[in-house]
Amino acid sequence: MGDASIPIPAVAVTLGLGCDRGTPLETVEQAVQLALAQAGVPMAAVVAAASIEAKADEVAFLALTRARGWPLRLYSAQALSEVPVPNPSETVRRYMGTPSVSEAAAMLAAGTRTPTDLLVEKFKCKGGDGKNATVSVARVAVARCFSESDREVVHALMQSRRDMRRFVPGATVDAPTRQRLLEAAQTAPSVGLMQPWRFIRVTDTALRECLAVAVDAERLRTAAVLGSRAEAFLALKVEGLRECAELWAVVLAPDDGTVFGRRTMPQAMAWCSVGAAVQNLWLAARAENLGLGWVSLFEPQEVAPLLAVPTGAEVLGLLCIGPVPRFDAEPMLSLEGWRHPRGTAAFMAENTWPLVTGDVNPDVCF
Amino acid sequence: MGDASIPIPAVAVTLGLGCDRGTPLETVEQAVQLALAQAGVPMAAVVAAASIEAKADEVAFLALTRARGWPLRLYSAQALSEVPVPNPSETVRRYMGTPSVSEAAAMLAAGTRTPTDLLVEKFKCKGGDGKNATVSVARVAVARCFSESDREVVHALMQSRRDMRRFVPGATVDAPTRQRLLEAAQTAPSVGLMQPWRFIRVTDTALRECLAVAVDAERLRTAAVLGSRAEAFLALKVEGLRECAELWAVVLAPDDGTVFGRRTMPQAMAWCSVGAAVQNLWLAARAENLGLGWVSLFEPQEVAPLLAVPTGAEVLGLLCIGPVPRFDAEPMLSLEGWRHPRGTAAFMAENTWPLVTGDVNPDVCF
Repeated sequence: MGDASIPIPAVAVTLGLGCDRGTPLETVEQAVQLALAQAGVPMAAVVAAASIEAKADEVAFLALTRARGWPLRLYSAQALSEVPVPNPSETVRRYMGTPSVSEAAAMLAAGTRTPTDLLVEKFKCKGGDGKNATVSVARVAVARCFSESDREVVHALMQSRRDMRRFVPGATVDAPTRQRLLEAAQTAPSVGLMQPWRFIRVTDTALRECLAVAVDAERLRTAAVLGSRAEAFLALKVEGLRECAELWAVVLAPDDGTVFGRRTMPQAMAWCSVGAAVQNLWLAARAENLGLGWVSLFEPQEVAPLLAVPTGAEVLGLLCIGPVPRFDAEPMLSLEGWRHPRGTAAFMAENTWPLVTGDVNPDVCF
Repeated sequence: MGDASIPIPAVAVTLGLGCDRGTPLETVEQAVQLALAQAGVPMAAVVAAASIEAKADEVAFLALTRARGWPLRLYSAQALSEVPVPNPSETVRRYMGTPSVSEAAAMLAAGTRTPTDLLVEKFKCKGGDGKNATVSVARVAVARCFSESDREVVHALMQSRRDMRRFVPGATVDAPTRQRLLEAAQTAPSVGLMQPWRFIRVTDTALRECLAVAVDAERLRTAAVLGSRAEAFLALKVEGLRECAELWAVVLAPDDGTVFGRRTMPQAMAWCSVGAAVQNLWLAARAENLGLGWVSLFEPQEVAPLLAVPTGAEVLGLLCIGPVPRFDAEPMLSLEGWRHPRGTAAFMAENTWPLVTGDVNPDVCF
């Protein structure tokens, strides 16, 4: 149609590469060409090549990717071994520390864990010198495009999520649901991919009671510093530790020394990452029509020994999770008249800070 | 059918109450009965009564709610004045500081901002002494029940959210979309409802460049401490400040003294709340098919004066938001081989901490 724009290939693929040490470039090139022909995709569809870290100095791989302009992505044996591949090999595992190099590397680079995304599983090509090259071809996962109705679900979810203190006693949350909640937390962002959150599920009833007693004690200490609002505070239901179906402690792991993105604000960035993970968990629980309440009314040094967390770890919350009698449309603290959430108007400024400071301290002056 | 369980009323309502000072109980009682009759709901459907704080000592209200066993919820004039009511009154505003008491209080207690949830807007009843009682009846908002397909959207959203560094240059994000993003952040949970997050939208191109220069400088300082990984770090695209459509700084507001839930961990809880708000923003952006990248590569004391944030406020992130060329199925740091996210297995323990400690420090030993 005379359209001069650059044609975009209908499919994007990654190549997973494996070979015997010192396999010549020609053998690897031939394996790639034949594998792509078998997949029925052009050379232009390749967006990256991938292999194992042990092949960082494999001459043919370096020459091929430099000549073609492909990034060469290298993965550890550990990362490769976690990919569910169609053709794991005991021999490869013995020599490389992972049951698959080419299939797993292609899938990792394509961002897929689905074996059917391998257009070519394991294409082997032997050169005249007897050395083998192996090529896998994986289809790059296409990102989801969200619709208007998807957004309606997302905003309804966020708006109807509450910090719950009342739970249906004697209820349970089944294992598949618990796993979905944990996976939601695990998909959270974290500074430098440090994933600093840990969860401890409290199943021991005596331990749960000890934690509840620690919260009771802090409730009284908090009331003591609230002055004229102490009575109103004590009238509130502030936690549901004894009634909730599931009690999970969320713990900040001891610092692993991650520098990426946190050289200047190491503590703040780790804590923000935990906050993001709990928010994912919270939204996922609400999507299951389950309540979650983040209880932070405790002395960390009283609670840490109960959960045997190591030095450097910080218990940041006791998360009460489970079925609830009802979800209110407004936060409990607002319904009870303790404090009201504010709209967006005072929270966004342009270029500089003209935002209202000197916010009223509600705990004292409300 | 012989079912002995307690009947649950088909509808739950709240009553908004107003009256002249010293109106007798009988007048208020009569107004309530007639208003409920007009709404067509039984007395048993009432779950709460509500009014303005100035009526905390109104004898008839206290007597009525005690006799009926209803909680009496009292709201500030400020909170009431923010409710969009069908019949605002200039006279009421002059005397009470809010254009509505009964309609606004009923709606707040019912957890609704929708005027059509008022089954009775403003029912007025004059006693023999000439004193007036006013009653509004609001339907309690019914909480959303999420389905299997809703959960699919939520998990797909969380799994496809990425920390983005590449943006389509020259793109824009329209005002309604920006407002939806801000509202998503604002619905986040926060300790004691303190809502400690603030956003500064950077529209000044010179300011944006100054912030980008500050990030460039920190990038080099971070590389300098990364030792053997410096080169690999510098090869990564770690920020998109100059290309992204929108640049928002996220700032922790100066401490407002909130005690509720943070007597023992004031800083951690404030930071976690900011993390939760940014996560909501992040998910909402992804639902708009927009990317967001949280850049924390800067010296806070270099960036704070650029944005004129006051003492006590902390710039926690520079959020790059906008259209992106593509969403990858795995985190960029993973695709580039810098560090791989871990599955859930090592992140959940039971009762005590047997979780793997001594995590490898990837920035040094990867």
